[in-house]
Amino acid sequence: MRGVSPDASQAAHPGLPTRVALGVSYNGQRYNGWQSQPSGNTVQDHLEAALGRFTTQQVSTLCAGRTDAGVHGLMQVVHFDTTLVRPDASWVRGTNAFLPQDIAVQWARAVPSGFHARASAVARRYAYVLLQSPVRPSVEAGRVGWVFNALNEDAMRQAALRLLGEHDFTSFRASACQAKSPVKTLQRIDITRTPCPRASAAGEFDACYWRFEFEANAFLHHMIRNIMGSLVAVGKGTKPPSWISEVLDAHSRDAAAPTFSPDGLYFQGPVYAPQWGLPGRTAAYDWLP
Amino acid sequence: MRGVSPDASQAAHPGLPTRVALGVSYNGQRYNGWQSQPSGNTVQDHLEAALGRFTTQQVSTLCAGRTDAGVHGLMQVVHFDTTLVRPDASWVRGTNAFLPQDIAVQWARAVPSGFHARASAVARRYAYVLLQSPVRPSVEAGRVGWVFNALNEDAMRQAALRLLGEHDFTSFRASACQAKSPVKTLQRIDITRTPCPRASAAGEFDACYWRFEFEANAFLHHMIRNIMGSLVAVGKGTKPPSWISEVLDAHSRDAAAPTFSPDGLYFQGPVYAPQWGLPGRTAAYDWLP
Repeated sequence: MRGVSPDASQAAHPGLPTRVALGVSYNGQRYNGWQSQPSGNTVQDHLEAALGRFTTQQVSTLCAGRTDAGVHGLMQVVHFDTTLVRPDASWVRGTNAFLPQDIAVQWARAVPSGFHARASAVARRYAYVLLQSPVRPSVEAGRVGWVFNALNEDAMRQAALRLLGEHDFTSFRASACQAKSPVKTLQRIDITRTPCPRASAAGEFDACYWRFEFEANAFLHHMIRNIMGSLVAVGKGTKPPSWISEVLDAHSRDAAAPTFSPDGLYFQGPVYAPQWGLPGRTAAYDWLP
Repeated sequence: MRGVSPDASQAAHPGLPTRVALGVSYNGQRYNGWQSQPSGNTVQDHLEAALGRFTTQQVSTLCAGRTDAGVHGLMQVVHFDTTLVRPDASWVRGTNAFLPQDIAVQWARAVPSGFHARASAVARRYAYVLLQSPVRPSVEAGRVGWVFNALNEDAMRQAALRLLGEHDFTSFRASACQAKSPVKTLQRIDITRTPCPRASAAGEFDACYWRFEFEANAFLHHMIRNIMGSLVAVGKGTKPPSWISEVLDAHSRDAAAPTFSPDGLYFQGPVYAPQWGLPGRTAAYDWLP
Protein backbone atom coordinates (compact mmCIF):
# COMPACT_ATOMS: atom_id res chain seq x y z
CA MET A 1 0.00 0.00 0.00
CA ARG A 2 1.50 3.36 -0.90
CA GLY A 3 1.38 6.16 1.63
CA VAL A 4 -1.18 8.93 1.61
CA SER A 5 0.08 12.46 1.21
CA PRO A 6 -1.46 15.81 0.30
CA ASP A 7 0.42 15.51 -2.99
CA ALA A 8 -1.06 12.15 -3.96
CA SER A 9 -3.02 13.72 -6.82
CA GLN A 10 0.02 15.57 -8.12
CA ALA A 11 2.08 12.38 -7.91
CA ALA A 12 -0.27 10.42 -10.16
CA HIS A 13 0.90 9.96 -13.71
CA PRO A 14 -1.49 11.43 -16.29
CA GLY A 15 -3.06 8.53 -18.13
CA LEU A 16 -2.93 6.17 -15.15
CA PRO A 17 -6.19 6.17 -13.18
CA THR A 18 -6.24 7.79 -9.75
CA ARG A 19 -8.71 6.75 -7.07
CA VAL A 20 -10.55 9.67 -5.47
CA ALA A 21 -12.67 9.56 -2.29
CA LEU A 22 -15.42 12.13 -1.62
CA GLY A 23 -17.36 12.94 1.56
CA VAL A 24 -20.92 13.94 0.62
CA SER A 25 -23.71 15.54 2.72
CA TYR A 26 -27.36 15.64 1.69
CA ASN A 27 -30.89 16.24 2.87
CA GLY A 28 -32.73 13.09 1.76
CA GLN A 29 -36.25 14.56 1.78
CA ARG A 30 -36.55 15.12 -1.97
CA TYR A 31 -34.72 11.99 -3.15
CA ASN A 32 -35.53 8.34 -3.79
CA GLY A 33 -32.65 7.23 -1.60
CA TRP A 34 -28.97 6.89 -2.46
CA GLN A 35 -28.79 4.12 -5.05
CA SER A 36 -29.19 4.89 -8.78
CA GLN A 37 -32.52 3.88 -10.25
CA PRO A 38 -33.84 3.86 -13.81
CA SER A 39 -36.47 6.38 -12.65
CA GLY A 40 -33.67 8.71 -11.48
CA ASN A 41 -33.79 11.35 -8.75
CA THR A 42 -31.53 9.52 -6.35
CA VAL A 43 -28.55 11.15 -4.62
CA GLN A 44 -26.14 8.93 -6.57
CA ASP A 45 -27.82 9.96 -9.86
CA HIS A 46 -27.32 13.64 -9.02
CA LEU A 47 -23.73 13.12 -7.82
CA GLU A 48 -22.70 11.17 -10.92
CA ALA A 49 -24.42 13.68 -13.20
CA ALA A 50 -22.52 16.51 -11.49
CA LEU A 51 -19.20 14.64 -11.72
CA GLY A 52 -19.99 13.97 -15.39
CA ARG A 53 -20.61 17.64 -16.13
CA PHE A 54 -17.51 18.72 -14.21
CA THR A 55 -15.18 16.17 -15.83
CA THR A 56 -17.01 15.74 -19.17
CA GLN A 57 -16.45 12.03 -18.59
CA GLN A 58 -18.72 9.31 -17.29
CA VAL A 59 -17.96 8.70 -13.60
CA SER A 60 -19.27 5.70 -11.65
CA THR A 61 -19.19 5.92 -7.87
CA LEU A 62 -19.30 3.26 -5.18
CA CYS A 63 -20.60 4.24 -1.72
CA ALA A 64 -19.91 3.22 1.88
CA GLY A 65 -23.58 2.65 2.76
CA ARG A 66 -26.80 3.01 0.77
CA THR A 67 -29.52 5.11 2.37
CA ASP A 68 -33.28 4.70 1.91
CA ALA A 69 -35.66 7.29 0.50
CA GLY A 70 -36.01 10.18 2.96
CA VAL A 71 -32.86 9.30 4.94
CA HIS A 72 -30.21 12.02 5.21
CA GLY A 73 -26.44 11.84 4.85
CA LEU A 74 -24.03 13.79 7.04
CA MET A 75 -20.98 12.11 5.52
CA GLN A 76 -21.61 9.52 2.88
CA VAL A 77 -18.28 8.43 1.39
CA VAL A 78 -17.80 7.33 -2.22
CA HIS A 79 -14.81 6.45 -4.37
CA PHE A 80 -14.25 6.47 -8.12
CA ASP A 81 -11.35 6.06 -10.50
CA THR A 82 -10.38 8.74 -12.97
CA THR A 83 -7.55 9.58 -15.34
CA LEU A 84 -8.02 13.28 -14.58
CA VAL A 85 -5.62 14.96 -12.18
CA ARG A 86 -7.19 17.74 -10.13
CA PRO A 87 -6.37 19.33 -6.76
CA ASP A 88 -8.65 18.08 -3.95
CA ALA A 89 -10.31 21.48 -3.54
CA SER A 90 -11.11 21.54 -7.25
CA TRP A 91 -13.09 18.28 -6.99
CA VAL A 92 -15.14 19.83 -4.18
CA ARG A 93 -15.88 23.18 -5.81
CA GLY A 94 -16.24 21.85 -9.34
CA THR A 95 -18.69 19.10 -8.41
CA ASN A 96 -20.72 21.30 -6.06
CA ALA A 97 -21.29 23.78 -8.87
CA PHE A 98 -23.45 21.16 -10.62
CA LEU A 99 -25.22 19.67 -7.56
CA PRO A 100 -28.69 20.67 -6.24
CA GLN A 101 -28.60 22.97 -3.20
CA ASP A 102 -29.38 20.14 -0.73
CA ILE A 103 -26.41 17.95 -1.77
CA ALA A 104 -22.76 19.00 -1.39
CA VAL A 105 -19.34 17.37 -1.54
CA GLN A 106 -17.63 18.23 1.76
CA TRP A 107 -14.12 17.00 1.02
CA ALA A 108 -12.13 15.15 -1.62
CA ARG A 109 -8.92 13.15 -1.29
CA ALA A 110 -6.79 11.25 -3.76
CA VAL A 111 -6.44 7.80 -2.14
CA PRO A 112 -4.35 4.69 -2.82
CA SER A 113 -5.96 2.18 -5.17
CA GLY A 114 -6.29 -0.23 -2.24
CA PHE A 115 -8.91 2.01 -0.66
CA HIS A 116 -12.55 0.97 -1.17
CA ALA A 117 -15.39 3.12 0.22
CA ARG A 118 -17.44 0.08 1.29
CA ALA A 119 -14.90 -2.69 1.90
CA SER A 120 -12.41 -0.48 3.79
CA ALA A 121 -15.05 0.71 6.26
CA VAL A 122 -14.52 -0.95 9.64
CA ALA A 123 -17.73 0.51 11.09
CA ARG A 124 -20.72 2.73 10.24
CA ARG A 125 -22.42 5.40 12.34
CA TYR A 126 -26.01 6.57 12.25
CA ALA A 127 -27.98 9.09 14.30
CA TYR A 128 -31.73 9.12 14.79
CA VAL A 129 -33.32 12.39 15.96
CA LEU A 130 -36.75 12.16 17.54
CA LEU A 131 -39.10 14.97 18.60
CA GLN A 132 -41.11 14.14 21.71
CA SER A 133 -44.01 16.60 21.76
CA PRO A 134 -47.80 16.78 21.95
CA VAL A 135 -47.52 18.68 18.63
CA ARG A 136 -46.17 17.24 15.36
CA PRO A 137 -42.96 18.65 13.79
CA SER A 138 -43.18 21.84 11.67
CA VAL A 139 -39.92 23.84 11.45
CA GLU A 140 -38.09 20.50 11.34
CA ALA A 141 -40.67 18.48 9.35
CA GLY A 142 -39.11 15.67 7.30
CA ARG A 143 -35.90 15.82 9.32
CA VAL A 144 -37.01 14.35 12.63
CA GLY A 145 -39.08 11.40 13.86
CA TRP A 146 -42.00 12.14 16.20
CA VAL A 147 -43.54 10.61 19.31
CA PHE A 148 -46.54 12.04 21.10
CA ASN A 149 -45.84 10.35 24.45
CA ALA A 150 -43.09 10.98 26.99
CA LEU A 151 -40.40 8.29 26.72
CA ASN A 152 -38.74 6.52 29.63
CA GLU A 153 -34.99 7.00 29.27
CA ASP A 154 -33.93 4.30 31.73
CA ALA A 155 -36.12 1.67 30.09
CA MET A 156 -34.71 2.51 26.64
CA ARG A 157 -31.13 2.34 27.94
CA GLN A 158 -31.78 -1.08 29.46
CA ALA A 159 -33.27 -2.27 26.18
CA ALA A 160 -30.36 -0.82 24.19
CA LEU A 161 -27.84 -2.69 26.35
CA ARG A 162 -29.46 -5.95 25.27
CA LEU A 163 -28.71 -5.12 21.64
CA LEU A 164 -24.99 -4.42 22.11
CA GLY A 165 -22.46 -6.98 20.91
CA GLU A 166 -22.66 -9.65 18.22
CA HIS A 167 -26.18 -10.87 17.45
CA ASP A 168 -28.24 -12.40 14.69
CA PHE A 169 -30.40 -9.36 13.85
CA THR A 170 -32.88 -11.24 11.63
CA SER A 171 -35.78 -9.82 13.69
CA PHE A 172 -34.71 -6.28 12.73
CA ARG A 173 -34.03 -7.02 9.04
CA ALA A 174 -36.19 -5.96 6.10
CA SER A 175 -37.40 -8.80 3.86
CA ALA A 176 -35.64 -7.13 0.91
CA CYS A 177 -32.26 -7.12 2.70
CA GLN A 178 -29.41 -8.42 0.51
CA ALA A 179 -26.75 -8.86 3.21
CA LYS A 180 -25.07 -12.28 3.20
CA SER A 181 -25.29 -12.69 6.96
CA PRO A 182 -27.76 -11.34 9.55
CA VAL A 183 -25.01 -11.46 12.21
CA LYS A 184 -23.68 -7.98 12.99
CA THR A 185 -21.86 -6.39 15.93
CA LEU A 186 -23.48 -3.32 17.50
CA GLN A 187 -20.64 -1.52 19.24
CA ARG A 188 -22.44 1.51 20.62
CA ILE A 189 -25.89 3.00 21.23
CA ASP A 190 -25.82 6.47 22.82
CA ILE A 191 -29.09 8.02 23.98
CA THR A 192 -29.16 11.74 24.79
CA ARG A 193 -31.86 14.41 24.95
CA THR A 194 -32.32 18.15 25.19
CA PRO A 195 -33.75 19.51 28.48
CA CYS A 196 -37.50 19.08 28.68
CA PRO A 197 -38.99 21.84 30.89
CA ARG A 198 -42.14 20.99 32.74
CA ALA A 199 -45.26 23.03 33.44
CA SER A 200 -44.52 26.44 34.95
CA ALA A 201 -46.50 29.52 35.84
CA ALA A 202 -45.51 31.14 32.54
CA GLY A 203 -47.11 28.35 30.50
CA GLU A 204 -45.93 24.84 29.88
CA PHE A 205 -44.48 22.88 27.05
CA ASP A 206 -43.47 19.31 27.51
CA ALA A 207 -41.27 18.64 24.53
CA CYS A 208 -37.67 17.72 23.75
CA TYR A 209 -35.42 16.19 21.11
CA TRP A 210 -33.95 12.73 21.60
CA ARG A 211 -30.78 11.69 19.79
CA PHE A 212 -29.93 8.02 19.34
CA GLU A 213 -26.48 7.21 17.95
CA PHE A 214 -25.63 3.76 16.62
CA GLU A 215 -22.28 2.28 15.62
CA ALA A 216 -21.84 -1.21 14.17
CA ASN A 217 -19.49 -3.02 11.81
CA ALA A 218 -22.40 -3.00 9.37
CA PHE A 219 -26.19 -2.63 9.39
CA LEU A 220 -28.92 -4.68 7.73
CA HIS A 221 -31.59 -3.05 5.57
CA HIS A 222 -34.03 -1.08 7.79
CA MET A 223 -32.13 -2.32 10.88
CA ILE A 224 -31.98 1.05 12.65
CA ARG A 225 -35.57 2.02 11.77
CA ASN A 226 -36.71 -1.38 13.09
CA ILE A 227 -34.62 -1.04 16.26
CA MET A 228 -36.01 2.50 16.74
CA GLY A 229 -39.58 1.19 16.51
CA SER A 230 -38.83 -1.34 19.24
CA LEU A 231 -36.88 1.07 21.49
CA VAL A 232 -39.79 3.53 21.28
CA ALA A 233 -42.23 0.73 22.22
CA VAL A 234 -40.11 0.17 25.33
CA GLY A 235 -39.79 3.92 25.98
CA LYS A 236 -43.58 4.30 25.90
CA GLY A 237 -43.98 1.40 28.32
CA THR A 238 -45.83 -0.75 25.78
CA LYS A 239 -43.14 -3.41 26.24
CA PRO A 240 -40.60 -4.06 29.04
CA PRO A 241 -36.84 -3.79 28.30
CA SER A 242 -36.47 -7.58 28.50
CA TRP A 243 -38.81 -7.91 25.51
CA ILE A 244 -35.93 -6.78 23.25
CA SER A 245 -34.09 -10.04 24.03
CA GLU A 246 -37.21 -12.01 23.13
CA VAL A 247 -37.38 -10.16 19.82
CA LEU A 248 -33.71 -10.93 19.08
CA ASP A 249 -34.17 -14.60 19.99
CA ALA A 250 -37.27 -14.96 17.81
CA HIS A 251 -35.22 -14.49 14.60
CA SER A 252 -38.42 -13.25 12.98
CA ARG A 253 -39.35 -9.82 11.66
CA ASP A 254 -42.86 -10.36 13.01
CA ALA A 255 -41.52 -10.26 16.58
CA ALA A 256 -40.33 -6.62 16.44
CA ALA A 257 -42.30 -3.36 16.36
CA PRO A 258 -43.18 -1.70 13.03
CA THR A 259 -40.44 0.08 11.03
CA PHE A 260 -39.98 3.66 12.23
CA SER A 261 -40.14 6.72 9.92
CA PRO A 262 -37.03 7.53 7.80
CA ASP A 263 -37.44 11.27 8.56
CA GLY A 264 -35.14 11.40 11.59
CA LEU A 265 -32.41 9.06 10.29
CA TYR A 266 -28.97 10.47 9.44
CA PHE A 267 -26.06 8.42 8.07
CA GLN A 268 -23.16 9.95 9.99
CA GLY A 269 -20.71 8.03 7.89
CA PRO A 270 -18.26 5.14 7.74
CA VAL A 271 -15.23 4.69 9.98
CA TYR A 272 -11.91 3.96 8.27
CA ALA A 273 -8.50 3.04 9.65
CA PRO A 274 -6.48 6.20 10.40
CA GLN A 275 -3.82 5.38 7.79
CA TRP A 276 -6.22 6.33 4.97
CA GLY A 277 -6.06 9.90 6.27
CA LEU A 278 -9.73 10.73 5.65
CA PRO A 279 -11.82 13.25 7.66
CA GLY A 280 -13.81 11.58 10.43
CA ARG A 281 -16.79 13.94 10.44
CA THR A 282 -18.35 17.02 8.84
CA ALA A 283 -19.67 20.30 10.21
CA ALA A 284 -23.23 18.99 9.81
CA TYR A 285 -22.70 16.66 12.81
CA ASP A 286 -23.30 19.78 14.93
CA TRP A 287 -26.49 20.64 13.07
CA LEU A 288 -28.45 17.98 14.96
CA PRO A 289 -29.85 18.74 18.43
CA MET B 1 -58.02 43.36 33.27
CA ARG B 2 -59.51 40.05 34.26
CA GLY B 3 -57.25 37.25 35.39
CA VAL B 4 -56.08 34.40 33.19
CA SER B 5 -57.02 30.89 34.20
CA PRO B 6 -57.07 27.48 32.50
CA ASP B 7 -60.87 27.78 32.51
CA ALA B 8 -60.98 31.08 30.66
CA SER B 9 -62.51 29.42 27.59
CA GLN B 10 -65.13 27.60 29.65
CA ALA B 11 -65.99 30.83 31.47
CA ALA B 12 -66.82 32.65 28.26
CA HIS B 13 -70.50 33.01 27.51
CA PRO B 14 -71.55 31.44 24.20
CA GLY B 15 -72.43 34.24 21.83
CA LEU B 16 -69.94 36.69 23.34
CA PRO B 17 -66.62 36.66 21.48
CA THR B 18 -63.59 35.14 23.17
CA ARG B 19 -60.06 36.21 22.29
CA VAL B 20 -57.71 33.31 21.57
CA ALA B 21 -53.91 33.47 21.27
CA LEU B 22 -51.93 30.88 19.30
CA GLY B 23 -48.19 30.13 19.19
CA VAL B 24 -47.22 29.02 15.67
CA SER B 25 -44.00 27.44 14.32
CA TYR B 26 -43.11 27.25 10.63
CA ASN B 27 -40.34 26.61 8.15
CA GLY B 28 -40.46 29.69 5.91
CA GLN B 29 -38.68 28.16 2.90
CA ARG B 30 -41.79 27.46 0.81
CA TYR B 31 -43.77 30.59 1.73
CA ASN B 32 -44.02 34.20 0.59
CA GLY B 33 -43.52 35.45 4.15
CA TRP B 34 -46.08 35.83 6.92
CA GLN B 35 -48.47 38.53 5.72
CA SER B 36 -51.51 37.63 3.58
CA GLN B 37 -51.18 38.53 -0.10
CA PRO B 38 -53.63 38.42 -2.99
CA SER B 39 -51.30 35.87 -4.62
CA GLY B 40 -51.61 33.64 -1.52
CA ASN B 41 -49.12 31.07 -0.22
CA THR B 42 -48.17 33.02 2.87
CA VAL B 43 -48.10 31.49 6.35
CA GLN B 44 -51.02 33.71 7.43
CA ASP B 45 -53.04 32.56 4.39
CA HIS B 46 -52.49 28.91 5.35
CA LEU B 47 -53.22 29.53 9.04
CA GLU B 48 -56.46 31.40 8.38
CA ALA B 49 -57.55 28.78 5.83
CA ALA B 50 -56.94 26.03 8.43
CA LEU B 51 -58.81 27.97 11.14
CA GLY B 52 -61.63 28.50 8.65
CA ARG B 53 -61.89 24.80 7.86
CA PHE B 54 -61.72 23.83 11.53
CA THR B 55 -64.35 26.38 12.68
CA THR B 56 -66.36 26.66 9.44
CA GLN B 57 -66.19 30.41 10.10
CA GLN B 58 -64.00 33.13 8.66
CA VAL B 59 -61.16 33.87 11.11
CA SER B 60 -58.89 36.91 10.82
CA THR B 61 -55.62 36.82 12.75
CA LEU B 62 -53.27 39.56 13.90
CA CYS B 63 -49.59 38.66 14.48
CA ALA B 64 -46.80 39.80 16.81
CA GLY B 65 -44.26 40.32 14.03
CA ARG B 66 -44.40 39.84 10.27
CA THR B 67 -41.63 37.74 8.75
CA ASP B 68 -40.20 38.06 5.22
CA ALA B 69 -40.22 35.38 2.55
CA GLY B 70 -37.85 32.58 3.54
CA VAL B 71 -37.69 33.58 7.22
CA HIS B 72 -38.70 30.92 9.76
CA GLY B 73 -40.87 31.16 12.86
CA LEU B 74 -40.11 29.32 16.09
CA MET B 75 -42.96 31.02 17.96
CA GLN B 76 -44.99 33.51 16.01
CA VAL B 77 -47.95 34.62 18.16
CA VAL B 78 -51.35 35.61 16.77
CA HIS B 79 -54.70 36.48 18.29
CA PHE B 80 -58.25 36.35 16.95
CA ASP B 81 -61.78 36.75 18.29
CA THR B 82 -64.34 34.00 18.01
CA THR B 83 -67.78 33.14 19.35
CA LEU B 84 -66.81 29.47 19.44
CA VAL B 85 -65.89 27.91 22.77
CA ARG B 86 -63.28 25.16 22.49
CA PRO B 87 -60.70 23.69 24.90
CA ASP B 88 -57.17 24.99 24.26
CA ALA B 89 -55.92 21.57 23.12
CA SER B 90 -58.75 21.38 20.60
CA TRP B 91 -57.63 24.60 18.90
CA VAL B 92 -54.13 23.09 18.54
CA ARG B 93 -55.14 19.68 17.20
CA GLY B 94 -58.07 20.90 15.12
CA THR B 95 -56.09 23.62 13.35
CA ASN B 96 -53.01 21.46 12.79
CA ALA B 97 -55.13 18.88 11.02
CA PHE B 98 -55.64 21.41 8.19
CA LEU B 99 -52.14 22.96 8.10
CA PRO B 100 -49.28 21.94 5.75
CA GLN B 101 -46.61 19.73 7.38
CA ASP B 102 -44.14 22.62 7.83
CA ILE B 103 -46.54 24.84 9.83
CA ALA B 104 -47.98 23.87 13.24
CA VAL B 105 -49.82 25.57 16.08
CA GLN B 106 -47.77 24.84 19.23
CA TRP B 107 -50.15 26.11 21.88
CA ALA B 108 -53.49 27.92 22.26
CA ARG B 109 -54.80 30.00 25.16
CA ALA B 110 -58.05 31.85 25.75
CA VAL B 111 -56.86 35.36 26.73
CA PRO B 112 -58.55 38.49 28.11
CA SER B 113 -59.86 40.89 25.48
CA GLY B 114 -57.16 43.38 26.54
CA PHE B 115 -54.45 41.14 25.10
CA HIS B 116 -53.14 42.11 21.66
CA ALA B 117 -50.47 39.94 19.94
CA ARG B 118 -48.60 42.99 18.58
CA ALA B 119 -49.37 45.81 21.00
CA SER B 120 -48.90 43.71 24.16
CA ALA B 121 -45.44 42.54 23.11
CA VAL B 122 -42.79 44.33 25.17
CA ALA B 123 -39.92 42.84 23.14
CA ARG B 124 -39.14 40.55 20.19
CA ARG B 125 -36.43 37.91 19.83
CA TYR B 126 -34.73 36.66 16.67
CA ALA B 127 -31.93 34.18 16.06
CA TYR B 128 -29.65 34.09 13.03
CA VAL B 129 -27.79 30.84 12.32
CA LEU B 130 -24.74 31.05 10.10
CA LEU B 131 -22.61 28.24 8.66
CA GLN B 132 -18.92 29.12 8.41
CA SER B 133 -17.42 26.61 6.00
CA PRO B 134 -15.40 26.37 2.79
CA VAL B 135 -18.38 24.36 1.48
CA ARG B 136 -21.92 25.73 1.00
CA PRO B 137 -24.84 24.32 3.08
CA SER B 138 -26.52 21.05 1.95
CA VAL B 139 -28.27 19.10 4.73
CA GLU B 140 -29.34 22.49 6.18
CA ALA B 141 -29.83 24.39 2.90
CA GLY B 142 -32.44 27.16 3.16
CA ARG B 143 -32.24 27.14 6.94
CA VAL B 144 -28.84 28.70 7.53
CA GLY B 145 -26.81 31.64 6.25
CA TRP B 146 -23.33 30.94 4.87
CA VAL B 147 -19.90 32.53 5.00
CA PHE B 148 -16.83 31.09 3.32
CA ASN B 149 -14.29 32.90 5.52
CA ALA B 150 -13.42 32.40 9.18
CA LEU B 151 -15.03 35.15 11.30
CA ASN B 152 -13.32 37.04 14.11
CA GLU B 153 -15.47 36.59 17.21
CA ASP B 154 -13.90 39.41 19.26
CA ALA B 155 -14.30 41.93 16.45
CA MET B 156 -17.98 41.02 16.01
CA ARG B 157 -18.62 41.30 19.76
CA GLN B 158 -17.04 44.75 19.84
CA ALA B 159 -19.17 45.82 16.90
CA ALA B 160 -22.31 44.36 18.49
CA LEU B 161 -21.70 46.33 21.71
CA ARG B 162 -21.91 49.54 19.65
CA LEU B 163 -25.44 48.61 18.55
CA LEU B 164 -26.84 47.98 22.05
CA GLY B 165 -29.17 50.54 23.59
CA GLU B 166 -31.48 53.12 22.00
CA HIS B 167 -30.43 54.26 18.53
CA ASP B 168 -31.86 55.67 15.33
CA PHE B 169 -31.48 52.55 13.14
CA THR B 170 -32.24 54.31 9.83
CA SER B 171 -29.00 52.91 8.36
CA PHE B 172 -30.27 49.36 8.93
CA ARG B 173 -33.83 50.00 7.69
CA ALA B 174 -35.33 48.80 4.40
CA SER B 175 -36.74 51.55 2.16
CA ALA B 176 -40.16 49.81 2.30
CA CYS B 177 -40.23 49.92 6.12
CA GLN B 178 -43.57 51.18 7.48
CA ALA B 179 -42.52 51.78 11.11
CA LYS B 180 -43.43 55.23 12.47
CA SER B 181 -40.05 55.76 14.11
CA PRO B 182 -36.56 54.44 13.27
CA VAL B 183 -35.59 54.70 16.96
CA LYS B 184 -35.50 51.28 18.62
CA THR B 185 -33.81 49.81 21.69
CA LEU B 186 -31.57 46.77 21.15
CA GLN B 187 -31.42 45.08 24.54
CA ARG B 188 -29.27 42.05 23.74
CA ILE B 189 -27.03 40.52 21.08
CA ASP B 190 -25.61 37.11 22.03
CA ILE B 191 -22.98 35.54 19.80
CA THR B 192 -22.18 31.85 20.25
CA ARG B 193 -20.65 29.13 18.08
CA THR B 194 -20.14 25.40 17.91
CA PRO B 195 -16.56 24.12 18.33
CA CYS B 196 -14.53 24.50 15.16
CA PRO B 197 -11.85 21.78 15.04
CA ARG B 198 -8.68 22.64 13.19
CA ALA B 199 -6.54 20.54 10.89
CA SER B 200 -5.56 17.20 12.38
CA ALA B 201 -3.75 14.10 11.22
CA ALA B 202 -7.05 12.41 10.47
CA GLY B 203 -8.09 15.11 8.00
CA GLU B 204 -9.27 18.60 8.61
CA PHE B 205 -12.49 20.49 8.42
CA ASP B 206 -12.61 24.08 9.42
CA ALA B 207 -16.31 24.72 9.83
CA CYS B 208 -18.77 25.67 12.54
CA TYR B 209 -22.21 27.16 13.14
CA TRP B 210 -22.57 30.67 14.55
CA ARG B 211 -25.72 31.70 16.38
CA PHE B 212 -26.60 35.38 16.78
CA GLU B 213 -29.52 36.20 19.09
CA PHE B 214 -31.16 39.62 19.07
CA GLU B 215 -33.70 41.13 21.45
CA ALA B 216 -35.24 44.59 21.01
CA ASN B 217 -38.48 46.37 21.85
CA ALA B 218 -39.21 46.21 18.11
CA PHE B 219 -37.30 45.78 14.84
CA LEU B 220 -37.44 47.72 11.58
CA HIS B 221 -37.99 45.95 8.26
CA HIS B 222 -34.81 44.03 7.29
CA MET B 223 -33.07 45.39 10.41
CA ILE B 224 -31.54 42.08 11.50
CA ARG B 225 -30.53 41.02 7.99
CA ASN B 226 -28.89 44.44 7.53
CA ILE B 227 -27.14 44.23 10.91
CA MET B 228 -25.98 40.69 10.05
CA GLY B 229 -24.45 41.92 6.78
CA SER B 230 -22.50 44.55 8.69
CA LEU B 231 -21.45 42.25 11.56
CA VAL B 232 -20.15 39.74 9.01
CA ALA B 233 -18.19 42.52 7.25
CA VAL B 234 -16.52 43.22 10.61
CA GLY B 235 -16.05 39.50 11.32
CA LYS B 236 -14.26 39.03 7.99
CA GLY B 237 -12.01 42.01 8.73
CA THR B 238 -13.36 44.04 5.81
CA LYS B 239 -14.32 46.77 8.31
CA PRO B 240 -13.13 47.56 11.87
CA PRO B 241 -15.62 47.33 14.78
CA SER B 242 -15.69 51.13 15.08
CA TRP B 243 -17.16 51.31 11.56
CA ILE B 244 -20.52 50.16 13.01
CA SER B 245 -20.80 53.47 14.88
CA GLU B 246 -20.10 55.37 11.67
CA VAL B 247 -22.87 53.42 9.95
CA LEU B 248 -25.33 54.23 12.76
CA ASP B 249 -24.38 57.92 12.69
CA ALA B 250 -24.76 58.16 8.91
CA HIS B 251 -28.56 57.63 9.13
CA SER B 252 -28.38 56.27 5.61
CA ARG B 253 -29.01 52.78 4.25
CA ASP B 254 -26.11 53.31 1.85
CA ALA B 255 -23.68 53.33 4.77
CA ALA B 256 -24.29 49.72 5.84
CA ALA B 257 -23.33 46.41 4.19
CA PRO B 258 -25.76 44.62 1.85
CA THR B 259 -28.82 42.84 3.31
CA PHE B 260 -27.94 39.31 4.41
CA SER B 261 -29.82 36.19 3.25
CA PRO B 262 -33.18 35.36 4.94
CA ASP B 263 -32.25 31.64 5.07
CA GLY B 264 -30.74 31.65 8.57
CA LEU B 265 -33.25 34.00 10.23
CA TYR B 266 -35.66 32.63 12.85
CA PHE B 267 -38.31 34.69 14.65
CA GLN B 268 -38.03 33.26 18.17
CA GLY B 269 -41.11 35.18 19.21
CA PRO B 270 -42.49 38.11 21.17
CA VAL B 271 -42.02 38.68 24.90
CA TYR B 272 -45.17 39.42 26.93
CA ALA B 273 -45.66 40.46 30.54
CA PRO B 274 -45.95 37.35 32.79
CA GLN B 275 -49.55 38.14 33.80
CA TRP B 276 -50.79 37.06 30.35
CA GLY B 277 -49.69 33.52 31.24
CA LEU B 278 -48.40 32.63 27.76
CA PRO B 279 -45.58 30.13 27.02
CA GLY B 280 -42.22 31.85 26.57
CA ARG B 281 -40.70 29.43 24.07
CA THR B 282 -41.26 26.27 22.02
CA ALA B 283 -39.36 23.01 21.66
CA ALA B 284 -37.99 24.24 18.31
CA TYR B 285 -35.67 26.67 20.16
CA ASP B 286 -33.48 23.60 20.79
CA TRP B 287 -33.51 22.63 17.10
CA LEU B 288 -30.95 25.32 16.26
CA PRO B 289 -27.22 24.65 16.76
